[in-house]
Amino acid sequence: MINKKDIQNRIILAVETVKRTNPMVGSITNTVTINFVANAQLAVGGSAAMVYLPDESELLAKAGGATYINMGTLLPVYEQTLPHVAKVLYEAKKPWVLDPVAVGIGSLRTRLLRQFKEYKPTVIRGNASEIMALAGLWGLDGGAEVSRVRGVDTTDSVNDAKAAAVALARWTGGAVAVSGIIDLITDGSIIAFSFGGSHFMQKITGAGCALNGVIAVYATAVSPFIAALTAVAVFNLAGSRAEKKAEGPASYQVQFIDELYKASALDIAGNPFEIEEV
Amino acid sequence: MINKKDIQNRIILAVETVKRTNPMVGSITNTVTINFVANAQLAVGGSAAMVYLPDESELLAKAGGATYINMGTLLPVYEQTLPHVAKVLYEAKKPWVLDPVAVGIGSLRTRLLRQFKEYKPTVIRGNASEIMALAGLWGLDGGAEVSRVRGVDTTDSVNDAKAAAVALARWTGGAVAVSGIIDLITDGSIIAFSFGGSHFMQKITGAGCALNGVIAVYATAVSPFIAALTAVAVFNLAGSRAEKKAEGPASYQVQFIDELYKASALDIAGNPFEIEEV
Amino acid sequence: MINKKDIQNRIILAVETVKRTNPMVGSITNTVTINFVANAQLAVGGSAAMVYLPDESELLAKAGGATYINMGTLLPVYEQTLPHVAKVLYEAKKPWVLDPVAVGIGSLRTRLLRQFKEYKPTVIRGNASEIMALAGLWGLDGGAEVSRVRGVDTTDSVNDAKAAAVALARWTGGAVAVSGIIDLITDGSIIAFSFGGSHFMQKITGAGCALNGVIAVYATAVSPFIAALTAVAVFNLAGSRAEKKAEGPASYQVQFIDELYKASALDIAGNPFEIEEV
Repeated sequence: MINKKDIQNRIILAVETVKRTNPMVGSITNTVTINFVANAQLAVGGSAAMVYLPDESELLAKAGGATYINMGTLLPVYEQTLPHVAKVLYEAKKPWVLDPVAVGIGSLRTRLLRQFKEYKPTVIRGNASEIMALAGLWGLDGGAEVSRVRGVDTTDSVNDAKAAAVALARWTGGAVAVSGIIDLITDGSIIAFSFGGSHFMQKITGAGCALNGVIAVYATAVSPFIAALTAVAVFNLAGSRAEKKAEGPASYQVQFIDELYKASALDIAGNPFEIEEV
Repeated sequence: MINKKDIQNRIILAVETVKRTNPMVGSITNTVTINFVANAQLAVGGSAAMVYLPDESELLAKAGGATYINMGTLLPVYEQTLPHVAKVLYEAKKPWVLDPVAVGIGSLRTRLLRQFKEYKPTVIRGNASEIMALAGLWGLDGGAEVSRVRGVDTTDSVNDAKAAAVALARWTGGAVAVSGIIDLITDGSIIAFSFGGSHFMQKITGAGCALNGVIAVYATAVSPFIAALTAVAVFNLAGSRAEKKAEGPASYQVQFIDELYKASALDIAGNPFEIEEV
Repeated sequence: MINKKDIQNRIILAVETVKRTNPMVGSITNTVTINFVANAQLAVGGSAAMVYLPDESELLAKAGGATYINMGTLLPVYEQTLPHVAKVLYEAKKPWVLDPVAVGIGSLRTRLLRQFKEYKPTVIRGNASEIMALAGLWGLDGGAEVSRVRGVDTTDSVNDAKAAAVALARWTGGAVAVSGIIDLITDGSIIAFSFGGSHFMQKITGAGCALNGVIAVYATAVSPFIAALTAVAVFNLAGSRAEKKAEGPASYQVQFIDELYKASALDIAGNPFEIEEV
């Protein structure tokens, strides 16, 4: 079975490959945090490109190493763009990361998220309420019948979402990450718990969005599970380091991006985590 | 009659209630400063959610404690979204804050702002030219016949807009704030003047947008007048403190958000202001 | 013939005129870096206004001293807005700056960029691949037959784009700037090379977008060539200074905007550059 040392070596591979290859990742993401997403992707060594239109999204999906789809601030054109690009990605076997933010709010969002079930996102990351609501929408184990998502916030804890996360990962054949005090990452057979971060993460907008953008960067280089774990690890590491230097949320965000940029492969692999089998 | 001590106690109540309840505020706002708005709302203790689509806006309007509508960077979908959500808010007696930015520019903007007259925004905040132009558009006292708005900038002074501010507040039954060197806040019967801030406020984009987002946060907890005055006070306090530590506009903005986060209820209530009866 | 001292005097004129007149510049630009563009424009002394709708764009184009059109994150409404405002600008002989970002990606982008040929943008600035691809699209000398643009990145060097830059400038009668390690600015008869900047420019999103926004600010005051050279010079100067104080990309960006704000006309004119005749 997989051991921690083996996982750490793969994390090192993920970090070093990305720094060496500067992989391009296309994103269709919300207008609130789009700048933070791009800067986080650049900080870890990726290249960012954002689009809205269907044909541009298809081109980027095919040209890039991975794609990130975030369900925040939906615009009318998303109705054409999102199902199209998800289908393209699925058929081309290209990795893609889904942020089911605010699942349960609005009819277009619900319809799009339903459609994504068959296109099997490579990595899904959300807070506990979002993960449970998505599993519920897809009729999977551990799913919530009624979404308890509150805007962009969670009302559930990571452990509540464990069954849903495993069920989603088994359905997609990829990985699922649940953000919380301790973060959970699973591929459906093993679960990693990653430690670190900062209370300031709740005081800036877009930490989750940026994390997903960075997962997509690593997904160009390694397996969905390692990509998600690597991104969570670097966020927890940089988050802890930034908190020590911050006076408030804005100086925290500046320090956080700087620490993302400075984090070495060894340090990221050394960020504390535990594993257990499902 | 109301005295300063009484107002200060209500300001303390506003600040402490928000920090304790983390109220969710939905926003429909421009793409230029949307991130700054969200981070300012989070810094004072609120929770931010941004949308564009009509049904999502309605859901957020009903679920949130208050809503913020900003007329910057209009998109075509705003034609459906804005009148719908304003009507929902008015009928549900939910507080909402209007930023009539760039009033007078473009036919959609003018049509939407005209429609808002009957939906009586709970708080209206703008610069002097915007407040006078809106009063003019609504046929109220003190209104300018011709908008003197210059892009996002004012060409008038706060005192010029006093009659318009009072007339707007009497029409809506809420509060109106006019931003300037000295800020004016009125509920139609009393006027508060709030002091502080920084010359750097003109050198960063979105100080006014962020202020309105924060007014909406406080409007979940207290009266429109106290909500507006509390938000203006914390902006003036944090603005003055940030200026002392800043080297230029970007470090000012970082310091400003940090100071918003650190400001105590007592300090905010102690920020200088004067009151007069109309 | 033009000499360096003469150019430096015109740079000083550009900087001082902008600081004195606070010229308004309208922008239609991407959602990723729209905030950075506005704050950069404000930092050098301009006033920023951003729009999406056709009639609002026309009003701003006529009211402002110059307009900036950036081809990032296209939305469906751009199909109406961009050709309309380009035509208005051309007919009103108003300066406008084009950022042909991601030229070659998508059908709408290609169609719009083709249409711009007849509306002769006053300044075009891009990386080497973008400038060569645009010259190719317009059938001019030095143009690439196949776009080698990679998302928002270049795969070519500035010198490769020299012929294309000169051809574009001769076609428009304006100026063209090519960003790279050493930046090239030409009006079709002379070429300036500007030195400075920082490796961090590649590690933040939107340095090019912000540069174009600042070119538009200076284009309200001086010739297209001097406007482009002044903006490139202040970016190179502020970029070099910011790098010395930065710990990583986010603190770099904060320092960079602060240095844009603090740079004096004399220092900007003194930033190293060379000129040669074509």
